[in-house]
Amino acid sequence: MELYSYFRSSAAYRVRIALGLKGLDYRVIPVHLLRHGGEQLGDAYLSRNPEGLVPALDEGGRILTQSLAIIEYLDETHGPATLLPADALGRARVRALSLHVACDIHPLNNLRVLRWLSRELKVEQSARDDWYRHWVQLGFQALEAQLQSPGTGLCCHGDAPGMADCCLVPQVYNARRYDVDLSAFPTIARIAAHCESLPAFQAAHPGAQPDAE
Amino acid sequence: MELYSYFRSSAAYRVRIALGLKGLDYRVIPVHLLRHGGEQLGDAYLSRNPEGLVPALDEGGRILTQSLAIIEYLDETHGPATLLPADALGRARVRALSLHVACDIHPLNNLRVLRWLSRELKVEQSARDDWYRHWVQLGFQALEAQLQSPGTGLCCHGDAPGMADCCLVPQVYNARRYDVDLSAFPTIARIAAHCESLPAFQAAHPGAQPDAE
Repeated sequence: MELYSYFRSSAAYRVRIALGLKGLDYRVIPVHLLRHGGEQLGDAYLSRNPEGLVPALDEGGRILTQSLAIIEYLDETHGPATLLPADALGRARVRALSLHVACDIHPLNNLRVLRWLSRELKVEQSARDDWYRHWVQLGFQALEAQLQSPGTGLCCHGDAPGMADCCLVPQVYNARRYDVDLSAFPTIARIAAHCESLPAFQAAHPGAQPDAE
Repeated sequence: MELYSYFRSSAAYRVRIALGLKGLDYRVIPVHLLRHGGEQLGDAYLSRNPEGLVPALDEGGRILTQSLAIIEYLDETHGPATLLPADALGRARVRALSLHVACDIHPLNNLRVLRWLSRELKVEQSARDDWYRHWVQLGFQALEAQLQSPGTGLCCHGDAPGMADCCLVPQVYNARRYDVDLSAFPTIARIAAHCESLPAFQAAHPGAQPDAE
């Protein structure tokens, strides 16, 4: 398996964690989002993934896109399902927590969006940073509330890491980069700290990638 | 079942289509996103869904959130699965198409985001409309390309409507509201037109809702 990845991409980071949790071997093909006007927008990459976004997973010539779709596919096709719960209500909860990060926090802070704010709307750096922190804080407030349920354990759902943790940890990494104060989100901070102590999360960390800068 | 819904909410619209396609009875509880500073941010609604976003589905007292998680849950628990394909690769494709709309197009054009642009960043109406159309066009270009695959039929995946169509049609509705020229996206336009001829899609349309204005 080959993963088209950028070390700092939050969505690629999610899939790297999932691959590690499933114990799967894979090779990283770095796609540099900043160099040459963005390698993800070059013809070579667009022919694989017309969305021009990382990650994409190549499994035997089949290209899969969208991090959550990739994670669900890996869980369904490689060994027993471990990233999503066995019960439908549990799956709904894990998917909702994952989607909350993937739809309601992360897209607003994506590189292409921040660029549009700067280049097209001439938003100053400080207002752009406020924008970033606003969506993270708003999203984390809701996520912290959602995690005050009996379903939460050492991880987002129970004591074993799953898809929601694959989404949470990269978002926490991003939040720290932008100096978001995590003390207001003790459950999020506790779960992230626990997950970050696990080998699959450590191997997936941006700083551990071949293309890390 | 009770669906907390706003007639124009794209995410609520998705779930209404899915409920219709599954042939499920439900009652709409309108949550007005504009009135009283946004009913979704009032204590009554936040106690049900701390995310402060619609939709939320109440099934026997269990509150489910996030449109795609709700749709997958409905498909898993009510009759035979029809909204997602039987094979893992097909599911990965349908999820990727759905997430492409739900993560990479819609969140940038959400009401709360447009408001932030106007109120906090003082972005003029015309630049705000450009922002809206930009993300729709960029997303639809990629989606149109993704749909040039043998998996596409009358609908996004095969000839029967599924989760990806539940996401596509509301996004097309939004695009039309903002005068996005759909002639550049013939496959998207064709699929949307077909789906819109089906009763489940018609019943879910914003104009057919009890809270329509």
